[in-house]
Amino acid sequence: MKFLDRLNRSIDRSDSLLCVGLDSDLSKIPAHLGRTPDAVVEFNAAIIQATAHAAAAYKPNFAFYGALGSAGWDVLRRTLAAIPESKPVILDAKVGDIGNTAQQYARMYFDELDADALTVNPYMGADAVEPFTARPERGVYLLCLTSNPGANDFQRQQVGDAPLYEHVASRGRDWNSAGNVGLVVGATQRDALGRLRALAPELPFLVPGVGAQGGDLNAAVTECRDASGRGLLINASRSVLYASNDADFAAAARAVAEELRTRINRFR
Amino acid sequence: MKFLDRLNRSIDRSDSLLCVGLDSDLSKIPAHLGRTPDAVVEFNAAIIQATAHAAAAYKPNFAFYGALGSAGWDVLRRTLAAIPESKPVILDAKVGDIGNTAQQYARMYFDELDADALTVNPYMGADAVEPFTARPERGVYLLCLTSNPGANDFQRQQVGDAPLYEHVASRGRDWNSAGNVGLVVGATQRDALGRLRALAPELPFLVPGVGAQGGDLNAAVTECRDASGRGLLINASRSVLYASNDADFAAAARAVAEELRTRINRFR
Repeated sequence: MKFLDRLNRSIDRSDSLLCVGLDSDLSKIPAHLGRTPDAVVEFNAAIIQATAHAAAAYKPNFAFYGALGSAGWDVLRRTLAAIPESKPVILDAKVGDIGNTAQQYARMYFDELDADALTVNPYMGADAVEPFTARPERGVYLLCLTSNPGANDFQRQQVGDAPLYEHVASRGRDWNSAGNVGLVVGATQRDALGRLRALAPELPFLVPGVGAQGGDLNAAVTECRDASGRGLLINASRSVLYASNDADFAAAARAVAEELRTRINRFR
Repeated sequence: MKFLDRLNRSIDRSDSLLCVGLDSDLSKIPAHLGRTPDAVVEFNAAIIQATAHAAAAYKPNFAFYGALGSAGWDVLRRTLAAIPESKPVILDAKVGDIGNTAQQYARMYFDELDADALTVNPYMGADAVEPFTARPERGVYLLCLTSNPGANDFQRQQVGDAPLYEHVASRGRDWNSAGNVGLVVGATQRDALGRLRALAPELPFLVPGVGAQGGDLNAAVTECRDASGRGLLINASRSVLYASNDADFAAAARAVAEELRTRINRFR
């Protein structure tokens, strides 16, 4: 089944647009779990179990697993194994490299780790993106307009009659012949959301930035949803993962995830 | 010692601007080595031993190790251990993510893998670059104008009075307060090389694209060198690694590396 069909099915079944970001930092998880790589697996498995009914998808960021060194691959693998089959996994690795190298990344993330979708940095252009979009059953979220202050440095620079990020959105449409391209659009970029939805009406958005980064949830959902009330995922990482630092961390994560789902659905 | 000092010392000692790219593909190494991850370590160690006298630096691309799955980390670690201490290692991972995530990548590549330098994708802007430049003893090569055809899609787009890649070069200078920023500039981009050297006279360049991609070696060295006859590394990967597919692969790699050093030095 195509990524977008799987994603929409998961959105419908969970009645949720929430994506839980598994950016699990060994130094921030509850101390009673210990400080070993195994503790991250235990933590992630508990978070996943507590939130799966309220989440449409999960998004582990590769950096947090790479930072664990040699143990990281195994921790990521076991984390992925704890995610229910019905929930699409977006691996957040922001990859971007020339064609023959991008092929290796496709092998790493799609074949070895079996991710359903991947985040891809578009700076290197079409031939750096194509090895990922060439897998029709996998999703590719292009970094378009990110949630961080540095988005102003290049993404918001004017190229001809439009900012660079709008050109990325347009190329994203061009590259969407298999129906598997999406865009990363930061919730903090309020002025750009509606325009991007209009520019790329059929592309799913992955929207980070509503939690620790302070983006406006109402605006993000209202402006990024499509006609079916889907068309986006709202990602939350730290606000869910670290809802409590104590033995009740999973219950606290569940409560935050459920509340987020409810708040998101109010604006769908 | 600072990265650039270490690099220049290595350039002087080896009388070479050659960087050997360790993009070792399990499916392309000589068949007699076998097709196990250990074969990649054996292959890399032989390539390194055969070329170290003629190379100033080594550049493993993370994708080729990630594609090996769970064995990849160990293969990369053992490959790095085979590189002489005096040769700087540039880890080619083209990372780019928001600040707190970039911190994790810094931990992964600088602390866990002990790379001397890293390639970084600038698309996400200052706060995505800062966690890397904040390590004064480590080098950061920003993707500026890459060697692939897709460089035309965004990098060459006009922003105000200059193409985007020139803005990246200018910001690279701004971010160079610790003297540890460099630029990735493709040898295939002949018309841009001299202008980039003039724009960023003190930044070291990492120049891929002279081998399989067809860039002009003469132009690359002549236009990118600095006043001291240094200021750049010419990267070669496939032309060195796969110089022979037979039992003589290491000797063939040595011959290609020595010949490249000689050809490069002719234009310094």
